[in-house]
Amino acid sequence: MGHGMSEQKTPSQNTVRAICALGLVKGLPPEVATHVASLARVDVLPDGAGVFTQGAVAQRAYAVLVGAVRIRQIGSDGAQALMRMIAPGEMFGTVALFTEGYYPADAETAMSSHIASWSKADFIALTMNFPQIAINIIGMVGQRLANVQNRLREMATQSAEQRIAHALLMLVEQSGAVQAEVCEICIPLRRRDVAELAGTTLYTASRQLAAWEKVGLLARSRQMLVVRDANRLRRIAQGGLL
Amino acid sequence: MGHGMSEQKTPSQNTVRAICALGLVKGLPPEVATHVASLARVDVLPDGAGVFTQGAVAQRAYAVLVGAVRIRQIGSDGAQALMRMIAPGEMFGTVALFTEGYYPADAETAMSSHIASWSKADFIALTMNFPQIAINIIGMVGQRLANVQNRLREMATQSAEQRIAHALLMLVEQSGAVQAEVCEICIPLRRRDVAELAGTTLYTASRQLAAWEKVGLLARSRQMLVVRDANRLRRIAQGGLL
Repeated sequence: MGHGMSEQKTPSQNTVRAICALGLVKGLPPEVATHVASLARVDVLPDGAGVFTQGAVAQRAYAVLVGAVRIRQIGSDGAQALMRMIAPGEMFGTVALFTEGYYPADAETAMSSHIASWSKADFIALTMNFPQIAINIIGMVGQRLANVQNRLREMATQSAEQRIAHALLMLVEQSGAVQAEVCEICIPLRRRDVAELAGTTLYTASRQLAAWEKVGLLARSRQMLVVRDANRLRRIAQGGLL
Repeated sequence: MGHGMSEQKTPSQNTVRAICALGLVKGLPPEVATHVASLARVDVLPDGAGVFTQGAVAQRAYAVLVGAVRIRQIGSDGAQALMRMIAPGEMFGTVALFTEGYYPADAETAMSSHIASWSKADFIALTMNFPQIAINIIGMVGQRLANVQNRLREMATQSAEQRIAHALLMLVEQSGAVQAEVCEICIPLRRRDVAELAGTTLYTASRQLAAWEKVGLLARSRQMLVVRDANRLRRIAQGGLL
C-alpha cells in the first residue's frame, strides 16, 4: 500500500454489510461472515493509488467494496497489458497467497475506492477453519479462469469489433446489470482500457466506441459508459451485424 | 465417458503411486493420499476417446496418470480452439464441480491414456474434510489462471514466432523437463495443436516448426517433438533473434 495515501478505519456498518455480501463467505452462517469482516482492514484510497506491485511478496488478499481497481501485467519482454478491471464485490490478489507467493501483476485504483484486505496468516487460517471459504475461492478463481479462457479463444477466432463488444458485456456483468437493456458500467474506463481488454489497438477501439456512440448504442454519463441496447451489443458479440 | 471404450480397473500399485504424487495431495500424510487413491476410478482409454463434453453436467473430477488429454472449447459463434493439453500428473474438469456445474470444454485423449477420476460427492467431501486439498486446488487453478493470463497478454503484444516459442516452452514445462537443454515433449502434438495453443494459423505454425527443425532447434522422435536447444527457444520467446 502506498505511503500517506491510505486511511485505515474500523469497519463501519456499511463495510461489514459489504464484506458479508462477498462471494467469499457465501453459504456461511452470519456469525462467520461477521468474523471474516472483523479480521479485515479497510483502506480508503484516491484514484490512481497503488495497492500492490507485480513481483512483490504476496502478504494480503483484497476485495473492492466501493470503486474499481485495474490489474495490469508487464511481460518479461516489457510489454504491458490490462488483465482485468475489478468491480465492487470482487476479490483480487488472492491466488498469490496460495501459489508462488508473488503478486503476478500491478493493482491500482481506477477511481477513489474502499479496499478491504486480510493478512496472509488470517486468510489461510480462514480457509483451513472454514472449508466452505476455500470452496468459494475455488469457485471464484475458476470463474475467472473460464472468463480468461473465453477471451483467449475470442482473440484467436473473433474480429476486433466482436472482442470489444465482449469486453463491454463482461464489464456490464461485473457491474451487476445482466438483465436490463440499458445498463451503466460502474467502472470508469479509458479508451485505452477497452482496447487492452479487447486485445486491439487504441485506434481501433476508439473508432469503434465512437461509431457505437454515434448510432446510440453507447452513451457517456459523467465518467461512466452506458450501454443503451445490451441485446444489440450481444448480437454484435455473436458476430451479427449492427 | 464414451461407451465401450473404457476399461475399469482396481487401482494397481503403480496407479496408487501416481495418485499419491498428484499436486492434489501435496502436504498431506501418506494415509490421506492413499485414501484419496482408494476413492479413484481408473479408466484405460484409447487415443481419441471422449472423457467429457462441453455443456454436460459435471459429475467427476479427473487426472491424467499416463498419456495426455486435449481440452477444446467451442464458442457461442461456433469457432473451436484448443485451450490446453493436459500432461501426466495434471488434473482437469475439476473447477466445474465448484462453479456452474457444467463442463466448459470437451476433453479427449490425445494418445492412449490412464485417467483417474473421483465422483463429485467424494471430491467435495475430500475438500471439506481435508482443507489442505482445497488449498492445493486453489494453487493449481491459480497456476492455470496465471498461465492463461500470460498467453492472453502474449496474444495482444507478441509476434506469432514468439507465441509459438512460448507454447512449446509451456509444453516442455508440463513434460517435467525445465532444466535440461534437450527435452522431449511427452505429449503427441499435431501442427494444428501448436497453431491453436499459440493463437496463430496452421500455415504460420507449420512454416515456423519446419524452419526450426531445419536449423536443428527441434527434432521429431516417434510421435513426439524434441526441443534440442531450450535456451535458444527461450531467447526467441523473449523476442530475440534465432
